Amino acid sequence: MTKNNSRSKLSIFALGGLDEIGKNMYVVRYGDDIAVVDAGLMFPEEEMLGIDVVIPDITYLIENRDKVRGILLTHGHEDHIGGLPYILKELNVPVFGTKLTMGLVEHKLREAHLLNQTKRVVINNRSEVKLGSMRATFFKTNHSIPDSVGVCLETPEGRVVHTGDFKFDMTPVNGQAADMHKMAEIGKKGVLCLLSDSTNAERAGFTGSERTVGEALEAVFRKAKQRVIVATFASNIHRIQQVVDAAHMHNRKLAVVGRSMVNVVNISMELGYLRVPSDLLIDPDEINRLPAHRVAVISTGSQGEPMSALTRMAHGAHRKIEILPGDTVVLAATPIPGNEKLVSKTVDQLFRVGANVVYSTTSQHGVHVSGHGSQEDLKLMLNLMRPKYFIPIHGEHRMLRAHGQLAESVGIRPENIFISDNGDVVEFSDGKARYGSKVQTGNVLIDGLGVGDVGNIVLRDRKLLSQDGILVVVVTLGKNNGKILSGPDIISRGFVYVRESEKLLEEANRIVTQTMEKCANERVSEWASLKTSIRDALSRFLYDKTRRRPMILPIIMEV
Amino acid sequence: MTKNNSRSKLSIFALGGLDEIGKNMYVVRYGDDIAVVDAGLMFPEEEMLGIDVVIPDITYLIENRDKVRGILLTHGHEDHIGGLPYILKELNVPVFGTKLTMGLVEHKLREAHLLNQTKRVVINNRSEVKLGSMRATFFKTNHSIPDSVGVCLETPEGRVVHTGDFKFDMTPVNGQAADMHKMAEIGKKGVLCLLSDSTNAERAGFTGSERTVGEALEAVFRKAKQRVIVATFASNIHRIQQVVDAAHMHNRKLAVVGRSMVNVVNISMELGYLRVPSDLLIDPDEINRLPAHRVAVISTGSQGEPMSALTRMAHGAHRKIEILPGDTVVLAATPIPGNEKLVSKTVDQLFRVGANVVYSTTSQHGVHVSGHGSQEDLKLMLNLMRPKYFIPIHGEHRMLRAHGQLAESVGIRPENIFISDNGDVVEFSDGKARYGSKVQTGNVLIDGLGVGDVGNIVLRDRKLLSQDGILVVVVTLGKNNGKILSGPDIISRGFVYVRESEKLLEEANRIVTQTMEKCANERVSEWASLKTSIRDALSRFLYDKTRRRPMILPIIMEV
Repeated sequence: MTKNNSRSKLSIFALGGLDEIGKNMYVVRYGDDIAVVDAGLMFPEEEMLGIDVVIPDITYLIENRDKVRGILLTHGHEDHIGGLPYILKELNVPVFGTKLTMGLVEHKLREAHLLNQTKRVVINNRSEVKLGSMRATFFKTNHSIPDSVGVCLETPEGRVVHTGDFKFDMTPVNGQAADMHKMAEIGKKGVLCLLSDSTNAERAGFTGSERTVGEALEAVFRKAKQRVIVATFASNIHRIQQVVDAAHMHNRKLAVVGRSMVNVVNISMELGYLRVPSDLLIDPDEINRLPAHRVAVISTGSQGEPMSALTRMAHGAHRKIEILPGDTVVLAATPIPGNEKLVSKTVDQLFRVGANVVYSTTSQHGVHVSGHGSQEDLKLMLNLMRPKYFIPIHGEHRMLRAHGQLAESVGIRPENIFISDNGDVVEFSDGKARYGSKVQTGNVLIDGLGVGDVGNIVLRDRKLLSQDGILVVVVTLGKNNGKILSGPDIISRGFVYVRESEKLLEEANRIVTQTMEKCANERVSEWASLKTSIRDALSRFLYDKTRRRPMILPIIMEV
Repeated sequence: MTKNNSRSKLSIFALGGLDEIGKNMYVVRYGDDIAVVDAGLMFPEEEMLGIDVVIPDITYLIENRDKVRGILLTHGHEDHIGGLPYILKELNVPVFGTKLTMGLVEHKLREAHLLNQTKRVVINNRSEVKLGSMRATFFKTNHSIPDSVGVCLETPEGRVVHTGDFKFDMTPVNGQAADMHKMAEIGKKGVLCLLSDSTNAERAGFTGSERTVGEALEAVFRKAKQRVIVATFASNIHRIQQVVDAAHMHNRKLAVVGRSMVNVVNISMELGYLRVPSDLLIDPDEINRLPAHRVAVISTGSQGEPMSALTRMAHGAHRKIEILPGDTVVLAATPIPGNEKLVSKTVDQLFRVGANVVYSTTSQHGVHVSGHGSQEDLKLMLNLMRPKYFIPIHGEHRMLRAHGQLAESVGIRPENIFISDNGDVVEFSDGKARYGSKVQTGNVLIDGLGVGDVGNIVLRDRKLLSQDGILVVVVTLGKNNGKILSGPDIISRGFVYVRESEKLLEEANRIVTQTMEKCANERVSEWASLKTSIRDALSRFLYDKTRRRPMILPIIMEV
């Protein structure tokens, strides 16, 4: 049946996505064939100062580049496709995804000048993809972006199912329900191992239908007396569709604002995922020519991002649109963990300029539902698939734990549940699973054009600099006699107001001179020792006077 | 009746606490008499890099120091008393508070060497305090710390009521219900203006009773097979009492861990606010001598603070206690906004070391209730007080707005509701209120020993340094001929890995040399221009190569 010898085994592991929300990348290997599911990015954690985005360390894939048969994409969110422009530069392999997903990927690859060199294959829920000894098929799921799929990989060792991100929406906006019949069929044939989305494993019940958001939005439009501005995720095309429908129903024109919103609306209209009446859309320039009750706006900025369209509108800093008293602003999203304060500040600012603000904290308005299944959705998936082994994926550790509990509750044997970290390899042979040896993983930090050139030392320095600033001490010595020819000069940044701390800095200067004299008397001639002495003396002095520990950078010049 | 002339008026404003949670400080002035309610601190916002705490700008009080009759404290939380050690250094005025509040204050003032110079008066709900032409009385409230009160200030212009932080707990742990009869009496006599806590104005319903937490904790203790570790706020003595009771009931000894927890437990036992059976408490050292099911621990760290006892225990970094597999850990608190990620990481780590973790996200366990009243509590207060004017306090802008809505809903006239910012003065005369001229307010940032010596420029520099680091360029020139005698040397911190970027830094060096030669040819002799040229050329070069903008610090030495 396969070219692999009898000792081939099946291995499953993550290069990203475990114990984190972001940079999803899962690997299924059988013998000499590797299938990769998703290639996402992650936004930096708070302590990753100055970093733009984070991608997975793909050393393993590069070392096995001749074995990688392709990257299968489950859907078009950044944490699933955002790593592609970086990864495809290192690893030229075919990419498979549904029409909308590939539309979004195409846009990314064009910007990265990778479009032509990359083999791209559009698949649908009837496609079969051969990946060496493995065969991938796909099943439709519901998620907060259309055209999401789960993946079923048939391997000689058994079926491996990867759900992608999903919930069960019984009344989906586009009429396309998750393909439960296909899932049931896969489950009936027998699933060796299920990998399933754990994002909402801590949440009880079923996740609500996206359609309920449409009803809430419609109610807001019905009551609004002036303009309605809706901010939501650019990729949530179902929600955008419902804003389009509400605007149309209430006889308002709709302006699309924010770079990523414009981009996604264009792509999804072009590919047929968004149905917009022909005369509905207007240019933001035209807004002021229409009466307020004939205008709606859909915008980015639902996470309070400082540079987003909504934040700029709220602060009167948007070129074309200003929020006016009496406008209704809807934040059709909940804050992603970490963004709570930014969102609150945006809401505060919107109130200040006189808007009626509809947002998640107060509202029983229901202007947001999650795209990820809650505990009952997850149990339904587990029961449809009836896997022998289970690996919860896509979540922080406690979410994976909670998902493991759910799996136990529907009858999966505890010893068959593998709560793993990135790089933990689950190996299957003869129907048995165990942990194998670990694979290299990690965060590759991207700062500007630099990929991986910022690491722990640089981040530690940024952290130090951010806390108490820096003092640079420069002194010029004579080459022959070691005498001070100029300086010591002390320049500080981020430490104290120089004008109010002249005395402190003068004293600091004296400390440096004294230290150098002492070193000269003790015949300390190595610069390294001299620098250390200066650093120590100054650090002690400053901590004593200020209880701060600025970075101290002694520089010795010689002429 | 008063020494003030007929033109005296009543002014009410905040120096802290409006559009923020923290550094509460409210001022009521009649003629030449000033009463201050609370003197809190705030923990720094994310963008206040390196700052330890924030206190209100009290310039107004210092300029009117001869008029300040006293500071009335509503309760012993840091955001109400934490500013005292800084403020009393500048302003020596009497401080009034209930027994527990003053016990906590005493501890603070002793550490700040201010205990002897400060007049401290313990009040209770029957006390009357004369503050010049004003008279203060107090009414008991329920909050997440015992001995909380609201303040009623009788002024010649009318009654001003400040609720402090409150909820209505119908079954309080210490049996001391909020004094609704006294509130009703005050309301019946007539309230000119009410200032009321807005923290939970966005939340529907009534806030639950603290007693429900006791029931939930008792259930956790009942089921636990090994040690039980409960983390909560050190100041929540009611909750600590319930942990004490649960430990006692289930025949466990209790160890108290974490500096502030030990401190508060000692003070509140001493003052009679915590009833602990005589042989219940053990030293953390004794834990390992007892069987696991006979041990409980109460600890700080419910907010995932990196240096707290719980976090250190979870990481095996605590000197005396380690979490063992099978231990039950309860986080009896919800994350304060901004702490969500820290709390999640602690929960993850606790799961990793094998603990059963009871925390707020998953649990219908009910191991936390808020100390602040929700919408129905707030309406009850409004209806008891029936004020003519209303100023929502203690909350971010949207919370004040939501509270204003509630006031309207119970019949306060919209034009009598003043949604204000810190420094906005509401003036009353002849029973009419209007905004007067603003008063100076602001954040005074405390960094180590420095009070107010870190401002916008220093913070901006810290921000810049934290994003892309710094490059220092040093060069020594000859005094006579302006020739380069040494350098240029380039030293970077927080920018790139030096080892992997040698070529970049060499090129940067060349750019500096070229720029200096160009300046020499153009006879640029002013150092300021020379430095600017170096900074510009280097900045352009580095942005082009890396898309980063490190701070560039050119230093020219002359010998």
